[in-house]
Amino acid sequence: MSDQDNPFDHSRIDDVIHGRLRLGIMAYLSTVSPAIFGELKDKVGATDGNLSTHLRKLEDAGYIRQEKRFVGRRPQTRIHLTKNGRKAWVLWISQMQGLMRAAE
Amino acid sequence: MSDQDNPFDHSRIDDVIHGRLRLGIMAYLSTVSPAIFGELKDKVGATDGNLSTHLRKLEDAGYIRQEKRFVGRRPQTRIHLTKNGRKAWVLWISQMQGLMRAAE
Repeated sequence: MSDQDNPFDHSRIDDVIHGRLRLGIMAYLSTVSPAIFGELKDKVGATDGNLSTHLRKLEDAGYIRQEKRFVGRRPQTRIHLTKNGRKAWVLWISQMQGLMRAAE
Repeated sequence: MSDQDNPFDHSRIDDVIHGRLRLGIMAYLSTVSPAIFGELKDKVGATDGNLSTHLRKLEDAGYIRQEKRFVGRRPQTRIHLTKNGRKAWVLWISQMQGLMRAAE
């Protein structure tokens, strides 16, 4: 059986998405994109620093895009799910479903 | 909204199960228990040392039990999913399904 066909092989799972906090971020963005930094932070239960770190990791992978702008005089960061991010998210879901099916 | 009701809150996810390798272990054991060390290693794509480390973590959490015995003159380790392990696995699945549903 090749690794591709083996649902239990952990190395198939996209580690960039799989981390718990990044998973929450991706899941939320898949429903609300763009999301505002503060709103996302509340939803996923992160601190500012924590969220920034993980957003950078997702940005480096090309899964999200951060847009900094001003609303009046206040800076605001909006986070967009990218096309590649959505693809990676859909793939992660199908892998998890494969794993759950295999484990039934 | 309390943390309990918020599917995007990453801190709800059981970190002991969620790690990719431990996830593969738990999924496989949920179908085959007890499993033999070497068989499990192949299935989840781990090295000996790697698998041992993560089995210890699952054992410390009370999710698996390791049984060392001899088959003829050769030592063999069999790994059992415990009742608490199965409970935790089922809970993890329902959380992931909740997350996926929320993200539809």
